[in-house]
Amino acid sequence: MYGLCERYRERIQGAALVANPGCYATAAILGLAPALAMGLITLDIIIDAKSGVSGAGRGLTLGTHYTEANEDVSAYSLSGHRHLPEIVQELEAAARAGGHPIEHPLRATFVPHLMPMTRGILATCYADLNQQGAHSSLTTEEIRALYVQYYAGEPFVHIVEQPPHTKWTYGSNQCLVYPIVDTRTRRLLVISCLDNLVKGAAGQAVQNANRLYGLAETTGLPAVALYP
Amino acid sequence: MYGLCERYRERIQGAALVANPGCYATAAILGLAPALAMGLITLDIIIDAKSGVSGAGRGLTLGTHYTEANEDVSAYSLSGHRHLPEIVQELEAAARAGGHPIEHPLRATFVPHLMPMTRGILATCYADLNQQGAHSSLTTEEIRALYVQYYAGEPFVHIVEQPPHTKWTYGSNQCLVYPIVDTRTRRLLVISCLDNLVKGAAGQAVQNANRLYGLAETTGLPAVALYP
Amino acid sequence: MYGLCERYRERIQGAALVANPGCYATAAILGLAPALAMGLITLDIIIDAKSGVSGAGRGLTLGTHYTEANEDVSAYSLSGHRHLPEIVQELEAAARAGGHPIEHPLRATFVPHLMPMTRGILATCYADLNQQGAHSSLTTEEIRALYVQYYAGEPFVHIVEQPPHTKWTYGSNQCLVYPIVDTRTRRLLVISCLDNLVKGAAGQAVQNANRLYGLAETTGLPAVALYP
Amino acid sequence: MYGLCERYRERIQGAALVANPGCYATAAILGLAPALAMGLITLDIIIDAKSGVSGAGRGLTLGTHYTEANEDVSAYSLSGHRHLPEIVQELEAAARAGGHPIEHPLRATFVPHLMPMTRGILATCYADLNQQGAHSSLTTEEIRALYVQYYAGEPFVHIVEQPPHTKWTYGSNQCLVYPIVDTRTRRLLVISCLDNLVKGAAGQAVQNANRLYGLAETTGLPAVALYP
Repeated sequence: MYGLCERYRERIQGAALVANPGCYATAAILGLAPALAMGLITLDIIIDAKSGVSGAGRGLTLGTHYTEANEDVSAYSLSGHRHLPEIVQELEAAARAGGHPIEHPLRATFVPHLMPMTRGILATCYADLNQQGAHSSLTTEEIRALYVQYYAGEPFVHIVEQPPHTKWTYGSNQCLVYPIVDTRTRRLLVISCLDNLVKGAAGQAVQNANRLYGLAETTGLPAVALYP
Repeated sequence: MYGLCERYRERIQGAALVANPGCYATAAILGLAPALAMGLITLDIIIDAKSGVSGAGRGLTLGTHYTEANEDVSAYSLSGHRHLPEIVQELEAAARAGGHPIEHPLRATFVPHLMPMTRGILATCYADLNQQGAHSSLTTEEIRALYVQYYAGEPFVHIVEQPPHTKWTYGSNQCLVYPIVDTRTRRLLVISCLDNLVKGAAGQAVQNANRLYGLAETTGLPAVALYP
Repeated sequence: MYGLCERYRERIQGAALVANPGCYATAAILGLAPALAMGLITLDIIIDAKSGVSGAGRGLTLGTHYTEANEDVSAYSLSGHRHLPEIVQELEAAARAGGHPIEHPLRATFVPHLMPMTRGILATCYADLNQQGAHSSLTTEEIRALYVQYYAGEPFVHIVEQPPHTKWTYGSNQCLVYPIVDTRTRRLLVISCLDNLVKGAAGQAVQNANRLYGLAETTGLPAVALYP
Repeated sequence: MYGLCERYRERIQGAALVANPGCYATAAILGLAPALAMGLITLDIIIDAKSGVSGAGRGLTLGTHYTEANEDVSAYSLSGHRHLPEIVQELEAAARAGGHPIEHPLRATFVPHLMPMTRGILATCYADLNQQGAHSSLTTEEIRALYVQYYAGEPFVHIVEQPPHTKWTYGSNQCLVYPIVDTRTRRLLVISCLDNLVKGAAGQAVQNANRLYGLAETTGLPAVALYP
């Protein structure tokens, strides 16, 4: 079972196996799934993601040596990152679950970048607003209201009213999501961020374990970031 | 006169006034102008740019306080950054100069992000490859060869063979450009980077002044980065 | 009342006013008070302290601008830092409380340094071992054992067996203390570190408030650091 | 031959072998040699040094992994760093060269610390002012004047008038030296800093090679730091 409580809460409870989502995938899916489920955007998607160095694990590589990673930004895994398949799978599933047929496979480009910081992922997602149908002229405020409604009651997803900072999630299990319409181009931008070691890894695993064992989903999970 | 020597070298020499390009604009234009001039891509463009804090200037703001900017990534100026108009102007000019009619205004989304580092800009640019015409099935290698040819002889633009790091330009007047085809989606990705205080500001100003006063364009300009 | 629970626990409980110690002072006093109380060292002391930028507060100054503080180390307040008087007062009090007469005022030099990080203080303290009396030939292991005994039962002071890292205290109310004899010179070195915003500020204030209101002293205080 | 041009310029020129000084040693010796050569201080010395991570070399260790070194300060090599012997040798030699007998071996404590930055060393040196003789009541201004005179004509050592920042030497071959009297304790403090990869390594090697081959000592050496 794909262990994203925000989408499969009920089925995780009875699952035999739960796969904890990747850190990048969590940020991208929580940011874009509502727009696809509600039919707001087309299936052409770009995800430009930025991660702190802890996302690369604790193994010793030249790229994670302090003197190489400090004061540096670069893109990597341009021919395909291992999180891309789960992003595609879940975004297509979200569209289908919302009653929107997948006329062609999701056309997703995902480019991860390494940032000079320890923790944090920020995903900046770009998609064309659907120009057919009722939603074609939605404003930022209206889309934000739809997102708020979509995530109503979620303990660990919050729709924010200004571009979120990874630092706002430092050490917490929160994912912050910020949708905005680029009025010049009628693109929807969704920026989401989280702590890759908490909501993007161990925290989400605890969330899944809580659900699996019938505990309150928030048990033992920090809701407040350490700031600054 | 728009002071981008790589595009207007001859006209800068006789100009009465030269406007030094913005740091983001330099990275974006040097990365995308060849693709537009050669008709490789459509006019739908996304530029996701990442800048060190010195790009915000030396003024004192809470956002540039060390404790706020350290260990943090965020997007800003989502309703339009002041560099966007010059990016659009120059990319449309590049397309026209290449003989490609501008059937509709360039549809460009530009999102700048603040990175926890002092110097450096990395622009990750996304565009659909033109599916009509001779160029429709070009590979990464073929496009890279076209870029190499386009910038042949340029002292301060280099086409690199792996994703460039901002650190590779630290203190130098170089702009590194890396084009790659996302084969899954037939999008062209172009990653370009530079030191925002040199090629993105003072270095480029010296380059323009050199040209303006008839000196060798490279006079006094550092070509090698300080590493690490 | 000077609000250092580790020294004045009982008197804080009934105090009318409690002054929360400075961040530097807490690190220095917790590191050196045992040595003075036990008569291990003379009254000639050097404290070389290193602090993250949050120690300077949230006010906007050029020195705390990201581009100035990043990739930089410097000393400051060389003609006297406001924490020096409380350090002197408390170290002399510790010596007296241990039954050691203050034959001359404590000769303390305190040099604070600004480090390119958000949180954390590390104090490296240097003092000559007392060459008279029973303690004159103590080894590192023996002094460590004395420190362990001195702080036995303290919830927020731990004697560590290798040089401590500020990161080990990130977000926690712990102070880590590491005494070691420099055998070449018969000097005692004591390295102590803490999170300047927790044990060095708000955490210690809560510890004092707990004591003041008769709550368990550890109520609401994080004992575990966020790592990495 | 010990390759510190500031002390052995003439003898380096004819040497068969020149040993390039260590980075810590260069900072400590350039800071303290004048005081010993002029008989200003006793032979009891403490050197508290702070280095960027590049000082540890390019080898992969957990301690130099970005996520460990970032937001962290710690001391290391407390039982003796390999640079200590050359510091002792050269400081004793400076005292002797100044005509001051070495009545007992130099009593030097040297504690290096790792800082979360790529480049830079700052050495904070502490010593008791000699209370006998003509120099016993010198002020900061008088000692600074003596230092200025001592290093007159040196291309790569500058006496500064406020506490120096490692960032002021970034990428340059300069060593900045700042002496100050702690009037409370009559201790002399000398703070010196340099770029450990330039004046502390490759730059100094070039300086020695220039001297060895009879070139101008400053040939090819950057005198200006990259700032910020």
